[in-house]
Amino acid sequence: MVQLDDLDRAILRLLKEDARLTISEIAERLNRPESTIHFRIKKLLERGVIERYTIILGDSLRPKAVALIYIQAETPIIEDFLEKYISYIMKTLSILPNVLAVARSGKDSVVALVGEESEDKLNKFIDETIKVLPTLKRVEVIPLQDFVKGEDLVGFLVRV
Amino acid sequence: MVQLDDLDRAILRLLKEDARLTISEIAERLNRPESTIHFRIKKLLERGVIERYTIILGDSLRPKAVALIYIQAETPIIEDFLEKYISYIMKTLSILPNVLAVARSGKDSVVALVGEESEDKLNKFIDETIKVLPTLKRVEVIPLQDFVKGEDLVGFLVRV
Repeated sequence: MVQLDDLDRAILRLLKEDARLTISEIAERLNRPESTIHFRIKKLLERGVIERYTIILGDSLRPKAVALIYIQAETPIIEDFLEKYISYIMKTLSILPNVLAVARSGKDSVVALVGEESEDKLNKFIDETIKVLPTLKRVEVIPLQDFVKGEDLVGFLVRV
Repeated sequence: MVQLDDLDRAILRLLKEDARLTISEIAERLNRPESTIHFRIKKLLERGVIERYTIILGDSLRPKAVALIYIQAETPIIEDFLEKYISYIMKTLSILPNVLAVARSGKDSVVALVGEESEDKLNKFIDETIKVLPTLKRVEVIPLQDFVKGEDLVGFLVRV
């Protein structure tokens, strides 16, 4: 486990909130010399505690309707084929621009986060593009509304 | 819908990849004058296309075991109480540091993304902290492994 002290954590919290803060702004807020802040950020980057800097896109580019799709693959007669089914599903989903995230769940399932401009378009996308994939056994749609935590998730994941 | 041209999109893509790029680095990569890049980024910020700059935390701070929890609330005898149950569940979950994201799903359900250092700790957390909440009818755990898209999600959401 990585060792972080209170100053490291305070710097990370400020940068998470606004990564455009300059060294001198951070130094002022935390009441520490600029050289200290500079050194700490350098170390946090070198140690990979900060992986990278990025931007969060605003509402105008975010899909308005978002859902989790839980997909269970068919159990093939030849069991070795299950891995092939799963990789096929995961690969196909991850290429689609409406699919924001894809992860495996257990032996025979995949979860995807999908987004579209409207609920109608989202349902159409699920019906016409996801449910028709071969090798699927079960598809469950879990619509997501009103985030109370992690609300910027979609603005982070959306592609341009 | 916001109007973006190819240059705007190219800038956004570069900044998503690495928001520490300087104006002159972006100008060089896209073969445009610095003044143009400067102006475009200013406009993208003013229009809220770029909501904010942030950092993604590395592996050392990310939980090793992550799962989605689908929670259905009890249907109360007095139907008006459902909203109270849902807000209680969402509020309680969102305060917990292991809970990375919380969203409502439909009338009677809530979805949370939770993370812990190990699978054992995650299961313990779900059993001892989530499943014991009052007003729950059904709790389903969907473990997430091997992201093939959106893999930085957890590094984006994790708090320090």
